[in-house]
Amino acid sequence: MKFSIKQIGVIHTPYKENAPYQSDEKTKGDFTIELYPEYEPALTSLEKFNHIYVLYYLDQIDEKYKNVISPPWAGGKKTVGVFASRSPNRPNPIGLSVVKILKIEKNIITVSGIDAFDNTPIIDIKPYIKNLDSKEDANFGWVNITEFDEHFKKHLDGIPHKH
Amino acid sequence: MKFSIKQIGVIHTPYKENAPYQSDEKTKGDFTIELYPEYEPALTSLEKFNHIYVLYYLDQIDEKYKNVISPPWAGGKKTVGVFASRSPNRPNPIGLSVVKILKIEKNIITVSGIDAFDNTPIIDIKPYIKNLDSKEDANFGWVNITEFDEHFKKHLDGIPHKH
Repeated sequence: MKFSIKQIGVIHTPYKENAPYQSDEKTKGDFTIELYPEYEPALTSLEKFNHIYVLYYLDQIDEKYKNVISPPWAGGKKTVGVFASRSPNRPNPIGLSVVKILKIEKNIITVSGIDAFDNTPIIDIKPYIKNLDSKEDANFGWVNITEFDEHFKKHLDGIPHKH
Repeated sequence: MKFSIKQIGVIHTPYKENAPYQSDEKTKGDFTIELYPEYEPALTSLEKFNHIYVLYYLDQIDEKYKNVISPPWAGGKKTVGVFASRSPNRPNPIGLSVVKILKIEKNIITVSGIDAFDNTPIIDIKPYIKNLDSKEDANFGWVNITEFDEHFKKHLDGIPHKH
């Protein structure tokens, strides 16, 4: 069974063209979620939340899908299933990020850093509701938190690195 | 711009046919995520996590889309934008739930309660990673937590109620 989904806006990030990891060391900048103007009323009351989910369509994936991957940032030492990873190369290339709302003006939400390429199509915005979504007893799974944090920090700071 | 996404499995819940709120008061039961067998290897190492995101396609929505809604469980008193709600009637009818992993056997994940109709198509599974996804400073937005909890508890307990 196949379904059709539609773009409802676009993410603007400093990560131009093909890759966050190619951005300049000093790359900082605004991260904004620009919804198509017809959806502006659908943002009513969103400003009362401090975090949102952003769902986006990863339209720049060109690798062939594999069920099992080796996250490069983990030194290629581990092998894990795609569903146990946040790899963009998934059966359905849908990205999910939790971000902080900094500002909402008309149809534009300024958010904290989001690890998506500039011009990535948005497909949904949902409020992150504390009692539904914040799981204090969540864990890190197979993730070595030191390796992960180092990698993640490079993304946030725009430091070039291999994936 | 439109994109095509595909079903990768199915959610089994006690909520048959048309609505969780029509289920019997005593409805309890298993909630399972059944991936198509070809994706079984993609679950490797997922058992190390205790929570996952489940993304599913809400294929039973028959209402016309509106930018602004009145959540019935909030007494119809509030009016909020769809993106400030978890209403299933969205521009793209994609559902997102955080659930606890109870057991993984072959291509089947048994999970804690998930508020989806039986046979809902699955489109993605992602690990919920504590430092990425658990936001301790998240809030409840416009949600009155008492009203919300009462409604949510009815879903979890399978108690009939109006939506």
